Amino acid sequence: MSQNYCYFNGDILPVQDAHIHISDLGLLRSYAVFDYFRTYKSKPFMLADHLERFRNSAEELRLTLSLTDGEIGSIIDELIHKSEVVDVGIRMVITGGYSLDSMAVSDPNFMIIIEPLPVMAEEVYSKGVSLKTYEFLREVPLIKSTAYLNAIKLQPMKEQYDVWDLLYYFENGVLESPRNNFFIFKHKVLITPKDHILKGVTRKKILELARGVFEVQERKLTLDELWEADEAFISGTTKRIIPVVKIDDRSIGDGEVGECTKELTQLFDEYIEAL
Amino acid sequence: MSQNYCYFNGDILPVQDAHIHISDLGLLRSYAVFDYFRTYKSKPFMLADHLERFRNSAEELRLTLSLTDGEIGSIIDELIHKSEVVDVGIRMVITGGYSLDSMAVSDPNFMIIIEPLPVMAEEVYSKGVSLKTYEFLREVPLIKSTAYLNAIKLQPMKEQYDVWDLLYYFENGVLESPRNNFFIFKHKVLITPKDHILKGVTRKKILELARGVFEVQERKLTLDELWEADEAFISGTTKRIIPVVKIDDRSIGDGEVGECTKELTQLFDEYIEAL
Repeated sequence: MSQNYCYFNGDILPVQDAHIHISDLGLLRSYAVFDYFRTYKSKPFMLADHLERFRNSAEELRLTLSLTDGEIGSIIDELIHKSEVVDVGIRMVITGGYSLDSMAVSDPNFMIIIEPLPVMAEEVYSKGVSLKTYEFLREVPLIKSTAYLNAIKLQPMKEQYDVWDLLYYFENGVLESPRNNFFIFKHKVLITPKDHILKGVTRKKILELARGVFEVQERKLTLDELWEADEAFISGTTKRIIPVVKIDDRSIGDGEVGECTKELTQLFDEYIEAL
Repeated sequence: MSQNYCYFNGDILPVQDAHIHISDLGLLRSYAVFDYFRTYKSKPFMLADHLERFRNSAEELRLTLSLTDGEIGSIIDELIHKSEVVDVGIRMVITGGYSLDSMAVSDPNFMIIIEPLPVMAEEVYSKGVSLKTYEFLREVPLIKSTAYLNAIKLQPMKEQYDVWDLLYYFENGVLESPRNNFFIFKHKVLITPKDHILKGVTRKKILELARGVFEVQERKLTLDELWEADEAFISGTTKRIIPVVKIDDRSIGDGEVGECTKELTQLFDEYIEAL
């Protein structure tokens, strides 16, 4: 594996050499938030949006980031420059710091980690994927916290049900996948859940691009509407737009990748190409 | 501060020297469970119960503890022996290990950390404390996971409302405090919530001791019943039994530490003395 670097509390060092003391409140109490984004053509994609969300999440936990956006941007540039591949994933994490009593928040620990980008099979885009619904409401859905215990705990369900991922719902409202936002098309109207979800930066860009072409509705999406959808897809930083053709045992639309989803994917691809 | 030691993946070392790599799934994804107990007269209190709960929590996350109870007991004895004080707190943590893609579970990281015991003001026992109700249901309440983000996030409410701690409820059912179990007495019957809570080891011992003297009911406890309670208290490893005399703006009973609570406290103290 190629050597990647990270920033940790003021130092830049190889990722493999970066350690944190075991009294960290992120480790002992899950008191931490993060953000994750990627580069295109070696430049961070939508960095300003990710930084804004990261600062908001940190602020909700009363954690202060001592660096300016400019300083963080410079560190990221240096880390990317040190990387041996063109495009990478970038994870920023801020924790409650080293705590004497494992409850009191202290000076935050802040790290920026360069990671290899996951590789997606071409087939997921050309054929679409299947999801399984699962009732679950995250404790603090609006904060991008490190709370993924449930998501990881449920991983074996994917194999058990032979699906690509889960789709969380709560009561009769569709929410999101554990790491991705969710959308449907119905009569060429793009609909995506509005509340109790983590608002993805890719979601934001998709809505922006879609508004020029489709009617767009951000609102509560019910389970009943889900079963009547013409098309569906999930979105995310590394996944971009992945068509969903089956949910539980039901086909979405005719069970093929839909035309509106294809059109939106093309818009997104063109936007990326033009960067 | 006195020097404390810890066990980390096979080594015994001073706590201050123990570090974990930043790719740990406990840090990045809150994929970790723990247990916490204390010593009395330099011996771990109810170790078998804590180990059983710890193993159950770990198993729920598909994490396997490679050491036997006997081996863990020996390590704990050595750590206690190295400590410079008579009685200590002991924290065991097991995480999903170092993950290449920050989702896949790997070989667990396992640590046992010796911590100084918190000191409780005598006044909380003699005068009792106040709580504020807060609606909240933990994601995975039965597992002793490290998910305390919400508990820490809400800490400023204690100062804001001038209360000692919060009392979680969900819909009309009383649950627990962020780190403690909750009980009431009504007509000398001891009642404590049964579901959607973390079942404390101190709670278990209290119920065992109480059964000889009081009628005991483990069942759903409603908010309406809360306001009608004669007495109330919280329990925990370091707190033992702390009387609750006020919840929100309402006095519990006559607002003084109740007689049944005093009797139960005496039973518990005598049990500890006889160890």
